Amino acid sequence: MAKFTKEDALRYHEGVRPGKIEVVPTKPHSTQLDLSLAYSPGVAEPCLAIEANPNDVYKYTAKGNLVAVISNGTAVLGLGDIGAEAGKPVMEGKGLLFKIFADIDVFDIEVDSKDIDEFVKIVKGIAPTFGGINLEDIKAPECFAIEERLKKELEIPVMHDDQHGTAIISAAGLLNAAEIQNKKLEDIKLVVNGAGASAVACTRLYISLGVQKKNIVMVDSRGVIHKSRTDLSAVKKEFLTAKDVNTLEEALVGADMFLGLSVADVLTPDMIKSMANRPIVFALANPNPEIAYELAMKVRDDLVMATGRSDHPNQVNNVLGFPFIFRGALDVKATGINEEMKIAAVKALADLAKEDVPDMVNTAYKELNLNYGTDYIIPKPLDPRLLTVVAPAVAKAAMESGIAHAPITDWEAYEMELEQRMGRDNKLLRHLTSKAKRNPKRIVFAEGENFKVLKAAQTVLNEGIAQPILLGIQNI
Amino acid sequence: MAKFTKEDALRYHEGVRPGKIEVVPTKPHSTQLDLSLAYSPGVAEPCLAIEANPNDVYKYTAKGNLVAVISNGTAVLGLGDIGAEAGKPVMEGKGLLFKIFADIDVFDIEVDSKDIDEFVKIVKGIAPTFGGINLEDIKAPECFAIEERLKKELEIPVMHDDQHGTAIISAAGLLNAAEIQNKKLEDIKLVVNGAGASAVACTRLYISLGVQKKNIVMVDSRGVIHKSRTDLSAVKKEFLTAKDVNTLEEALVGADMFLGLSVADVLTPDMIKSMANRPIVFALANPNPEIAYELAMKVRDDLVMATGRSDHPNQVNNVLGFPFIFRGALDVKATGINEEMKIAAVKALADLAKEDVPDMVNTAYKELNLNYGTDYIIPKPLDPRLLTVVAPAVAKAAMESGIAHAPITDWEAYEMELEQRMGRDNKLLRHLTSKAKRNPKRIVFAEGENFKVLKAAQTVLNEGIAQPILLGIQNI
Repeated sequence: MAKFTKEDALRYHEGVRPGKIEVVPTKPHSTQLDLSLAYSPGVAEPCLAIEANPNDVYKYTAKGNLVAVISNGTAVLGLGDIGAEAGKPVMEGKGLLFKIFADIDVFDIEVDSKDIDEFVKIVKGIAPTFGGINLEDIKAPECFAIEERLKKELEIPVMHDDQHGTAIISAAGLLNAAEIQNKKLEDIKLVVNGAGASAVACTRLYISLGVQKKNIVMVDSRGVIHKSRTDLSAVKKEFLTAKDVNTLEEALVGADMFLGLSVADVLTPDMIKSMANRPIVFALANPNPEIAYELAMKVRDDLVMATGRSDHPNQVNNVLGFPFIFRGALDVKATGINEEMKIAAVKALADLAKEDVPDMVNTAYKELNLNYGTDYIIPKPLDPRLLTVVAPAVAKAAMESGIAHAPITDWEAYEMELEQRMGRDNKLLRHLTSKAKRNPKRIVFAEGENFKVLKAAQTVLNEGIAQPILLGIQNI
Repeated sequence: MAKFTKEDALRYHEGVRPGKIEVVPTKPHSTQLDLSLAYSPGVAEPCLAIEANPNDVYKYTAKGNLVAVISNGTAVLGLGDIGAEAGKPVMEGKGLLFKIFADIDVFDIEVDSKDIDEFVKIVKGIAPTFGGINLEDIKAPECFAIEERLKKELEIPVMHDDQHGTAIISAAGLLNAAEIQNKKLEDIKLVVNGAGASAVACTRLYISLGVQKKNIVMVDSRGVIHKSRTDLSAVKKEFLTAKDVNTLEEALVGADMFLGLSVADVLTPDMIKSMANRPIVFALANPNPEIAYELAMKVRDDLVMATGRSDHPNQVNNVLGFPFIFRGALDVKATGINEEMKIAAVKALADLAKEDVPDMVNTAYKELNLNYGTDYIIPKPLDPRLLTVVAPAVAKAAMESGIAHAPITDWEAYEMELEQRMGRDNKLLRHLTSKAKRNPKRIVFAEGENFKVLKAAQTVLNEGIAQPILLGIQNI
């Protein structure tokens, strides 16, 4: 975890321009002519065009790249119901992440309402403004009904990130952890500690990936979610267990996986010891996990562990998902974010973790060589490939599931457009690469036993740029 | 009017980044440390601070500089009810003007609702997001009730610019036109053509400046607003006339002033001929005035005329008002925009038109020498002094009328801050000027008969920088 003080955090947010965002013009605006195009009388032309053809709003306004991050502040971070205005720093921060990871513009909207009907009415009322809606930090159980209704009643992508973000990222981790631990999803005995928005969404997504409902035990703050309970909401009743277990401790005996979306330090070393061979522990409570990473790793050496923290391997960080999911959804004008798109994101993330990691990612994380395995089951947030891997996967899934208004046909051009968005487009390099690909030459790599040379040769081979020939010392 | 084609206007709005705005981060965001301050876990600190002290939302978020431009698209420009989405180009354009004229950040919000109660509920619902609310292009009579209720029920500045913007700018023009035409406001016989939001607001403001109700005749599309009418809304009934006139033509005989907020070409040369001596004609229909400027000027040579067009003298352009009115209101955290603040803006604008015009303004408008008089009764939109003249006047009025939460004490520092916002702060020049002011020297200006030299000497004298001594040819 990066080190800073409370004062650093406050100072970062204040200043002559308090907060973290501003809204700036993207078109020329210095002459009288510019202003008469931007506003009266020139602006009448796009207005009339949109009136005649409503879809032109995507052509002449910022709508198609504009996402609302909307919250009523009822479940902000780990802080609970702190109110709409007190949640604003988080919503602005989320907007900043959308922008820097996927070039999506965000209006953060803080809503003064805790009532489901009223909240839905307000969000629907302002929906014409936006190309998509990211619901954020709204407490359970209201968040379920709010998201469900808005998804149904609006024709733009809507996602409650606290539910689906964590679900998608952790599901990618689960696919890879299961592979590494040699477990089949349909056999995994899963204990979920926590029954909030995120725990519910994770569990639902794991089920749609293959985990069997009968193998799941969910535990909330009052104990195991069990037939005998009389205090359960409709949502929690989805996860009733038939097993005869009454506590987290009992539930974990012989379990393959622990998923924690609860509070710090509820998982003990003894509980981990009681789990099955090669267990998976996702202790995702924030900022402190259900068991400290070092402590858990001391208990067993056959463990794959993930947390929500950046100072340990396998951080489940929502930023791996929402920017790219919305990017893909916006770019094909999807009318929603459906299961197919979420699962496409899961698989794209899981697959990316198996690819060779670019040196710049190793450098950013001060790692020597990140490599698919126990300590690297999920890509890192600063990996520049996330955008060009996850967004197209989501876009493709939207098209294949029939909810894309503007299908992409040229995927290479789309990838280039994504790179250009981030200012990462290197025209010279692209020209040389495509020239090389048209007629791949044989290239001799000396020092073929050197790790970096091996990696370079592998990349050259994968991308079809050349046919590498390695020279080196045999059997070193 | 600047010349452009329909295609130019459409092309300006489209492109790889459609629309006119984007949202960008203002704080560092390139390292892991930056991101942990901007978002989790660092962002928890400002959240907790705001929870403990709600006013800190102005210290740690963009709220205090953020205005919503909100419309339901029911009265967009001269286009009528074209719908929320079709109005988006105008709202984005308004945001752009707020930004470039007063460094105010704007979220344009398009609302899908024409119902007063529902619209108010939606705007109130999202109000925690904003430091102020600019209602825009909402049709009458709904706009009156909507503005009134939001002003009463919210504790932030709310203004429907279509009503008050035009009222404020044209009132400044009226003060100066009356002075130039040697008329007293309390004697002016006023004919208002049009009875929409803007006409009503203008008339109300003129009355609060001294125009007598008994001297006013208002005419709507069905004729003179008269006791005998049975089709009048409550708002129109405010302006019943006792005079025995039935048509615009009859009403204008002997009138001192025509205010048009209606449609093109309803004012005929004969009507203008029938007006009193030294008449005032504000023909503000957009884009084409109630009578063409050239035609009106041919009829009489004792006329002072204003229009809404930039290609004639005396353009009544709302951009002279809203950016600076909101700037002043935000900067003292006013809880509203009251009559005192509007009148302060009127007077500041009227007074500014009497000041020497900086050369850069003449240059921007390709004028040789703009000078207070018949052809220059209102400042020009590109005049850089507007910000430092109007915003402080509005801020001061908010303080004096007791609705400012954060009074300004150091007005010189405030003016400097305003200049800095626009990047116009010249530290070296300021240092030299303040040094000169502390001990003004005598300076000899040669060529004292040259207009530019005379002007420079006047400025030097006005600002107290030096004591000018002019040398030149006598009696040229």
